[in-house]
Amino acid sequence: MKNKNISTFIGFDNEYDESKIVVFGAPFDGTTSFRPGTRFAPEVMRRESYGLETYSPYLEKDLENYKVFDGGDLEFSFGNPGAVLDSIYKYTEEILKDDKVPFMVGGEHLVSYGSIKAVYEKYPNLHVIHLDAHADLRADYMGEQFSHASVIRRCWDFLGDGKIYQFGIRSGCKEEFLWAKDHTYMEKYSMNTLSEIVDKLKDVPVYITIDLDILDPSIFPGTGTPEPGGITFKEMMDGIKEFEKLNVVGGDIVELSPSYDTSGASTATACKVLREVVLTMV
Amino acid sequence: MKNKNISTFIGFDNEYDESKIVVFGAPFDGTTSFRPGTRFAPEVMRRESYGLETYSPYLEKDLENYKVFDGGDLEFSFGNPGAVLDSIYKYTEEILKDDKVPFMVGGEHLVSYGSIKAVYEKYPNLHVIHLDAHADLRADYMGEQFSHASVIRRCWDFLGDGKIYQFGIRSGCKEEFLWAKDHTYMEKYSMNTLSEIVDKLKDVPVYITIDLDILDPSIFPGTGTPEPGGITFKEMMDGIKEFEKLNVVGGDIVELSPSYDTSGASTATACKVLREVVLTMV
Amino acid sequence: MKNKNISTFIGFDNEYDESKIVVFGAPFDGTTSFRPGTRFAPEVMRRESYGLETYSPYLEKDLENYKVFDGGDLEFSFGNPGAVLDSIYKYTEEILKDDKVPFMVGGEHLVSYGSIKAVYEKYPNLHVIHLDAHADLRADYMGEQFSHASVIRRCWDFLGDGKIYQFGIRSGCKEEFLWAKDHTYMEKYSMNTLSEIVDKLKDVPVYITIDLDILDPSIFPGTGTPEPGGITFKEMMDGIKEFEKLNVVGGDIVELSPSYDTSGASTATACKVLREVVLTMV
Amino acid sequence: MKNKNISTFIGFDNEYDESKIVVFGAPFDGTTSFRPGTRFAPEVMRRESYGLETYSPYLEKDLENYKVFDGGDLEFSFGNPGAVLDSIYKYTEEILKDDKVPFMVGGEHLVSYGSIKAVYEKYPNLHVIHLDAHADLRADYMGEQFSHASVIRRCWDFLGDGKIYQFGIRSGCKEEFLWAKDHTYMEKYSMNTLSEIVDKLKDVPVYITIDLDILDPSIFPGTGTPEPGGITFKEMMDGIKEFEKLNVVGGDIVELSPSYDTSGASTATACKVLREVVLTMV
Amino acid sequence: MKNKNISTFIGFDNEYDESKIVVFGAPFDGTTSFRPGTRFAPEVMRRESYGLETYSPYLEKDLENYKVFDGGDLEFSFGNPGAVLDSIYKYTEEILKDDKVPFMVGGEHLVSYGSIKAVYEKYPNLHVIHLDAHADLRADYMGEQFSHASVIRRCWDFLGDGKIYQFGIRSGCKEEFLWAKDHTYMEKYSMNTLSEIVDKLKDVPVYITIDLDILDPSIFPGTGTPEPGGITFKEMMDGIKEFEKLNVVGGDIVELSPSYDTSGASTATACKVLREVVLTMV
Amino acid sequence: MKNKNISTFIGFDNEYDESKIVVFGAPFDGTTSFRPGTRFAPEVMRRESYGLETYSPYLEKDLENYKVFDGGDLEFSFGNPGAVLDSIYKYTEEILKDDKVPFMVGGEHLVSYGSIKAVYEKYPNLHVIHLDAHADLRADYMGEQFSHASVIRRCWDFLGDGKIYQFGIRSGCKEEFLWAKDHTYMEKYSMNTLSEIVDKLKDVPVYITIDLDILDPSIFPGTGTPEPGGITFKEMMDGIKEFEKLNVVGGDIVELSPSYDTSGASTATACKVLREVVLTMV
Repeated sequence: MKNKNISTFIGFDNEYDESKIVVFGAPFDGTTSFRPGTRFAPEVMRRESYGLETYSPYLEKDLENYKVFDGGDLEFSFGNPGAVLDSIYKYTEEILKDDKVPFMVGGEHLVSYGSIKAVYEKYPNLHVIHLDAHADLRADYMGEQFSHASVIRRCWDFLGDGKIYQFGIRSGCKEEFLWAKDHTYMEKYSMNTLSEIVDKLKDVPVYITIDLDILDPSIFPGTGTPEPGGITFKEMMDGIKEFEKLNVVGGDIVELSPSYDTSGASTATACKVLREVVLTMV
Repeated sequence: MKNKNISTFIGFDNEYDESKIVVFGAPFDGTTSFRPGTRFAPEVMRRESYGLETYSPYLEKDLENYKVFDGGDLEFSFGNPGAVLDSIYKYTEEILKDDKVPFMVGGEHLVSYGSIKAVYEKYPNLHVIHLDAHADLRADYMGEQFSHASVIRRCWDFLGDGKIYQFGIRSGCKEEFLWAKDHTYMEKYSMNTLSEIVDKLKDVPVYITIDLDILDPSIFPGTGTPEPGGITFKEMMDGIKEFEKLNVVGGDIVELSPSYDTSGASTATACKVLREVVLTMV
Repeated sequence: MKNKNISTFIGFDNEYDESKIVVFGAPFDGTTSFRPGTRFAPEVMRRESYGLETYSPYLEKDLENYKVFDGGDLEFSFGNPGAVLDSIYKYTEEILKDDKVPFMVGGEHLVSYGSIKAVYEKYPNLHVIHLDAHADLRADYMGEQFSHASVIRRCWDFLGDGKIYQFGIRSGCKEEFLWAKDHTYMEKYSMNTLSEIVDKLKDVPVYITIDLDILDPSIFPGTGTPEPGGITFKEMMDGIKEFEKLNVVGGDIVELSPSYDTSGASTATACKVLREVVLTMV
Repeated sequence: MKNKNISTFIGFDNEYDESKIVVFGAPFDGTTSFRPGTRFAPEVMRRESYGLETYSPYLEKDLENYKVFDGGDLEFSFGNPGAVLDSIYKYTEEILKDDKVPFMVGGEHLVSYGSIKAVYEKYPNLHVIHLDAHADLRADYMGEQFSHASVIRRCWDFLGDGKIYQFGIRSGCKEEFLWAKDHTYMEKYSMNTLSEIVDKLKDVPVYITIDLDILDPSIFPGTGTPEPGGITFKEMMDGIKEFEKLNVVGGDIVELSPSYDTSGASTATACKVLREVVLTMV
Repeated sequence: MKNKNISTFIGFDNEYDESKIVVFGAPFDGTTSFRPGTRFAPEVMRRESYGLETYSPYLEKDLENYKVFDGGDLEFSFGNPGAVLDSIYKYTEEILKDDKVPFMVGGEHLVSYGSIKAVYEKYPNLHVIHLDAHADLRADYMGEQFSHASVIRRCWDFLGDGKIYQFGIRSGCKEEFLWAKDHTYMEKYSMNTLSEIVDKLKDVPVYITIDLDILDPSIFPGTGTPEPGGITFKEMMDGIKEFEKLNVVGGDIVELSPSYDTSGASTATACKVLREVVLTMV
Repeated sequence: MKNKNISTFIGFDNEYDESKIVVFGAPFDGTTSFRPGTRFAPEVMRRESYGLETYSPYLEKDLENYKVFDGGDLEFSFGNPGAVLDSIYKYTEEILKDDKVPFMVGGEHLVSYGSIKAVYEKYPNLHVIHLDAHADLRADYMGEQFSHASVIRRCWDFLGDGKIYQFGIRSGCKEEFLWAKDHTYMEKYSMNTLSEIVDKLKDVPVYITIDLDILDPSIFPGTGTPEPGGITFKEMMDGIKEFEKLNVVGGDIVELSPSYDTSGASTATACKVLREVVLTMV
């Protein structure tokens, strides 16, 4: 205890240089219109992750056998989403330059834009797997182009048709569902076709963005806009196992709001999803 | 903003005269013996309903295309259940006289008595579909005839045998289960036979009373007396779709207790059930 | 109940045209860097204000004898503070044009900028009384000029020296305290000199901006950045009584965060301060 | 542990027959119009009282040296306030017949009616000391004569003028304050004159009814209708010491609502007030 | 109400001598490393059990027809786990001597050691059915042999191989899973093989230890270390029905932490599991 | 962000070698008999301290101008208080050997024993200033010698008479108050005589142990055993200023329980006390 106090997610306590995967926090919720609080997720997850084991009986892998680095949280000025996205973009770019894989912990879903953009510039053939309760395909939200409710639409602006695969969607305005028919692959409510899609995407670079509210609020109430009717934790775990077959070049997990997680079960769920996803990537 | 501040459930912001369905709140929990708080449900649901969309991907209908009116909350004097039921009865009667369909948001389950009574007097052949964890068939509760635990029994007093269809029941005293055998149709635990019953009731006027605690506490913890072993949200949604086939002349949704809904997920669930049920009635 | 459901603060249920004072909500907390949640204040205060009486034994006045209008909440797009301030500015301007007195309920303190700006343009000799725990005098906050931590500095930009009177200040960076020596009147910790200042300002137009965190967290824990060492409620009430001597041409009350007010006592306090301040202005 | 599990307030674990003071709970909140929950007070206070010591350094007395009996809670049927008051009346009467002193723990303030009535019938010259934030002097509340807001007025119906001494009152409608001028002794806000009144009442039988919301919400937030501007805990303790000079023939302590006491400090405060008051009566 | 106030679980209000089953609380959580609070479970369960009925529609049995005694809680000195286990051991031994069946309500899982030890000494051929999310098979935890994380390993020390049957296990370090292969029967994640095992154990004395965190956190968030991926309540009920076929000579239910059960649904679940398990034993 | 994520109290982010003061956390609450949770204090305080400024307007000093090191938290095995005290003792000893001043953040009050012991061994003429609501002078607690309720008594075992100065004490059993008369200096309820005592102790080495529950629960509800009747925050600040005159060779601050601090105000208070105390020591 003569060194400064280190705080990382459990098992991600390696050095930057030796690690293949770089996890970092993007504690921003500044465009959240309904109930804010996802800004607290990375910090609370770090702390609560110590209720987990490093060993996954599902994947029969132990984090202790792999090198993952936790870079801490980016610092943001609230009230300026453009600067926030820029800062995420730059840190992601740096990680990619060092030939590492970025994995971001939000924050609200808008943060994915900065990260997906940077990954796309390295991998122009990027495909995105998007797990979510909400379509996030609005052209704009109350006049703002960059919003948690339009983030996937903004990514489409550069990714184009045929690159976005959405699962679990059960909420949106009518226009979003109509628009999706022409521009994305969308499975409503569930992830039953994930396995087929994974087979199809085996040979292309893939980014995985997980809005945790795809989970049913029974297991994941701790989020800004709970949407009953989501997938179970077991369905999530089955989906995650599929990711082992992919070439995942970047990813994120967003929308845990610890303020609404009074029991801590949602945070525990987020931590376990993080552990499992990262273990499929090592 | 030169008009007074209006507060309605999302999408129910039409005028009384143009609307076919009239939604109103009955914020009473005065006979609740265990944990009070359902009095806060209508007000909190109005506010939180703005986390929902007006569009239902399940029914592919949008509230914006229909006329529903929110009349606000009745005002009650606590400590006098008789006067409360009377006030509900009178407002419901008025709605019916104007050839509209009343839909009430409780409050505790006792409030249904006032509403069902008024609907029955317009439709003497009324049948009642009752979703609930509790049988609510006690002859009396601690000497009181009018209680949340005896409300369906009180309705039977005027409806008679063969008119009440109960689903999801998993709690009650032994006498209630025995009594039900002779006087109501009761499916314990689930709603598997709802579809058959709906077929049978296609041509009669039906009142639907939904005690939200029929849902499992995993998805609906925010209620006074949580009863593990309930139905899932998906089972609820499947059931609601059946209602489209019926001639629903009145209904209610009761027993959300926001005080015990620390994450907001129960309120979101109540709001979604309300949206979906109303969309089956338009 | 054939009219739409109205929701106002208790006693502010008059028509716009007949009212001298216009109260409205500015539910914005988008630059809050620490703990958000003040966006919920106006809505929760409206609801909880019904725990109050309309009669003040302190001032021996009853809201029922005066005409105050509640215009509801402005709607904002989060993520764009400039647009938010603009919208506040415009609504305040409109109220002033109709020769009424605006009184805003925040939201975070930044919202005061929009309102004070509009009032200043009508009253170029405007003086501002500022009650707060924090100096809010930063030149910028993490590079942003418009922030809850710099709002009074931004008002100084147009008001100039000798116009700002600060009370209760007990937190800030060193630079803010130094800067204040040359540009504002500042009483640290308390409001002991308020009475003298009020005497001095009797003949000029005054705007009162009350950051409720001037109160000690013992009586007002429900705020984003609680600062122990504040004034008592009785000191606040004594201060408010002084305001009766002033020509108050605008005002606001900000920084209640209901999310951190688990008992409801902070909201009750905010409501009572609102009632009393408005009663000094009628 | 071959006997059934006993649960009493700390130090009140004596037999009925040997005790001079009988404490009991009246867990009723059925006329509470705003925020219910005082029904839980006696049970939660019993449990939490074990955080206290039996010894009071203020009074230098130890509960272990005195005989006090805890009779548990009366059982009520919610929805019938008349029956509730009757049940309290009868149990109090029984205690008085056995020449013991009743001390009730509410519940809402209405419960005091049953107890004061019974004590009055034994002591027709009964004087009542009433500590409260609210006047409780309404002629009726929304048409109901028996309500938490009219309980002291109902007691006046039989006690008459000159028998009621009110302290700490800071909320009520205008009519209550006017009515009080003719019929009760009322000190607003504080208890500064309690000592004089106690001197005056030394030779008459006195009932003490303590609505804990006389305390400032800073120390007592856990109540249904918090009213900022109340007395401090030290002022309360100074007041209680005065009671040692009186002939107290009955009393109660009401309006703790544990649901709003998230820290437990309000319950601890209620327990300490209970310990101290009872120690002045032994 | 001239007798002292009794507090028992609902339906367990019989005399010791007439009862075949003795339920008691072991409110200890002193080795809990992550989030404490299970010490409050027995007391809170007693109180909340009154939200249940005594009748089980699942088993069609009513507690009112059977004799079960609630002995209250053992008193422990925190900071000395050895003394705690000793005290549990002794009380269990006493119950067994009187030819009754002990059923303990924890507390953390370590308490099971004291009880299983005593039961084992009466029944040397004891088999243990262990429902849990965690393996609890560590050789030690941070150097301590007696810990919630090693309790089943400590029981193995005297029970030996082939006596322990574990179900639902989904968390542990790698070594625990490896060790289990040689020394216990372990079904990961579920209880699908419980029925077979029950058939096999029909003729031997069985102890059932239920760590409630075997349940998924969706239905049971109120525990120290929530582990998503657990069994549903219906799976639990199906499992419990199997127990009717066994010769159960002792049991326990542990790890409810009411502090994390903000809705009360976890406590309701624990109470229902307790009612059902006890009803299979009568 | 290529370095590991550092987490320290605000302003304590210097290197060990360059710092004169070493702050560290002792997250232990294993003997807490009533409500646990102080184990979470150091971690939560680190995080929440960023709501503070580094500048103190009270002392007109800025942490940025001084060198303080935060060593993080000691790791403990719960269930073994002896080992915990040993570990604290050793780390404190090490700090002292390096000629630095240790300042510990608890945890429950028992942790002070380890630290005071080590400081005493370096400074045999050590005097202790003890701020607390509770006397902590029991000979033992339920048979255990080392307990939060006996910690000052255990320190007396080696310090002896005339070395311990207690302030604010308002709870204890009768024996503790009697014992204090012969062995310690005790001011009940307040710190009015602190200034005199400080004058007396100017030339001896002093250890300051602050049990934050000396503060009134109005400002500090977030603790295991709230005791109404404590000192105000302003009295605390006046006391702390006195410490500047002393030769403080070690200290601690204990008994914040974040679990009971739902608003965060108690944690903010603890952080401010920590900042101010440390600023008097630089």
